[in-house]
Amino acid sequence: MDDENTVYIGKKETMNYVMAVVTQFNSGSDEVVIKSRGRAISKAVDVAEITRHRFVPESSIIDIKTDTEQIDREGDDGTVNVSSMEITMKKA
Amino acid sequence: MDDENTVYIGKKETMNYVMAVVTQFNSGSDEVVIKSRGRAISKAVDVAEITRHRFVPESSIIDIKTDTEQIDREGDDGTVNVSSMEITMKKA
Repeated sequence: MDDENTVYIGKKETMNYVMAVVTQFNSGSDEVVIKSRGRAISKAVDVAEITRHRFVPESSIIDIKTDTEQIDREGDDGTVNVSSMEITMKKA
Repeated sequence: MDDENTVYIGKKETMNYVMAVVTQFNSGSDEVVIKSRGRAISKAVDVAEITRHRFVPESSIIDIKTDTEQIDREGDDGTVNVSSMEITMKKA
């Protein structure tokens, strides 16, 4: 999966990311990967659920992976652990 | 899976739920299911990641399911859609 098919969840409104996923599917991608970290993980699940229920009914979630990433802490040399998630959606 | 092996993620500190999962494993459960809804989904992923990295290294996440639930809205008869997640962890 190259980066083109990946949607990164950030601080924008949920519907912005739903539209990004829908656009990926409509432009011919069979699979879209939704990547998120920390508190954005809840939003990533909303994005996948809204996409498959309201916009791309022939799509489904085929894989969900979680991991722990070490992120540089601001202000010193330490790191903090942050959970991350990758949701892979496929259009039938 | 009966309800005994289920940990519901709510508003308490993350480590409370980590300890609940660890206690389930230590009391003989092979599998523990972590259930969450809405914004608690991010915390549920933290709970699973902290459990397997720091407390029960022989455990792993064997399944993650998401769904959309309809919840009664306060103040009227309407409902709102809320994403939910079930993480199943297994001890080898």
